[in-house]
Amino acid sequence: MSNSNHHVPAIVIGRLPLYLRALTQLSSEGRHVTSSQELSEKLGFSSAQIRKDLSYFGEFGKQGTGYEIEFLEKSLREILQVHHVWDMALVGAGDLGHALANYDGFEARGFRIVAIFDADPTKIGLKMGDWQVQPITDMRETLREKKIQVAIIAVPATAAQQVADELVEGGVRAILNYAPTTLSVPQKVKVYHIDPVAGLQSMTYYL
Amino acid sequence: MSNSNHHVPAIVIGRLPLYLRALTQLSSEGRHVTSSQELSEKLGFSSAQIRKDLSYFGEFGKQGTGYEIEFLEKSLREILQVHHVWDMALVGAGDLGHALANYDGFEARGFRIVAIFDADPTKIGLKMGDWQVQPITDMRETLREKKIQVAIIAVPATAAQQVADELVEGGVRAILNYAPTTLSVPQKVKVYHIDPVAGLQSMTYYL
Repeated sequence: MSNSNHHVPAIVIGRLPLYLRALTQLSSEGRHVTSSQELSEKLGFSSAQIRKDLSYFGEFGKQGTGYEIEFLEKSLREILQVHHVWDMALVGAGDLGHALANYDGFEARGFRIVAIFDADPTKIGLKMGDWQVQPITDMRETLREKKIQVAIIAVPATAAQQVADELVEGGVRAILNYAPTTLSVPQKVKVYHIDPVAGLQSMTYYL
Repeated sequence: MSNSNHHVPAIVIGRLPLYLRALTQLSSEGRHVTSSQELSEKLGFSSAQIRKDLSYFGEFGKQGTGYEIEFLEKSLREILQVHHVWDMALVGAGDLGHALANYDGFEARGFRIVAIFDADPTKIGLKMGDWQVQPITDMRETLREKKIQVAIIAVPATAAQQVADELVEGGVRAILNYAPTTLSVPQKVKVYHIDPVAGLQSMTYYL
């Protein structure tokens, strides 16, 4: 149970949040024990895959008794470093920004928005979620003051690269990108691209 | 170049939209030829992986000359079946629904919203994008009339499973799910879950 193992493939890391989500759901249903078979049915990965993925981080299951949900959930939170809450900046106060500012699923899973920025003067000062929209010209300073390392880009594609550059200059190291464009960032910075059309296209193959 | 090959792993299919997106971007920059190396740098998969993925569908590259962008782009569109446009239903007319109804990135990539539904009486009749919000009680009939096979769920988690059941009853076979919950659907129905927190958690591992 260590996150210092740099040999874990990125594809495995990408699946851990899905295991964690499934465990939290089972836990909320009052369950205490699960199995790789049950997780397999819920998630669509093979149970062998699930056992192999988890084995990178220790011995979680016992032959015949399965996984203790609470312990595995806690361990995955620690591995993913979401046993504490990360402060996030949200850039973009349009419809999508609004939806994200009011989304109530962040905090329980390790994140909270603590600052919102927009370039549009008519948006500055608007209340969104718990915060007022700040001018994007204040962004770098606020990022550094609040030591923000995680940000969400919810601006049009044409503005996204410049926003990403400014986020990186402000010290951000993980960007959730909703803009429909590929961002170029230094290697130390992680980007996760939310692309609804890529999701749709991966399904139409099968229709 | 066939989509009847049922032995292609789902993980490979999931990467094709990313190749297509990168090719479209190169094409929009006026480029005509690319290489697995260049795609590798843009996307973060190894060039061997990219060559192997594409080789499931035919011979696209030539040793030493690379991939012809226009041809590969066209081929991937056909493989993913987005060389024509799919009609979609959008369920949920909140902030997120608004953002999706106004998103201008769907049609060029094979999708368009043709009906919007909400359960909230105060939302019925509102203009969103090109359409008026319809009562969810009309949904099944409209889905069948318009032969809609693809839908987006943008409702709260508590309502999502019921919406999914009704979509399936109406003939929908591919669901893009924004609700923060796992949906249970018949095996013939595909679900792609947009989960921003899973994306964030897959990055905090590295921070």
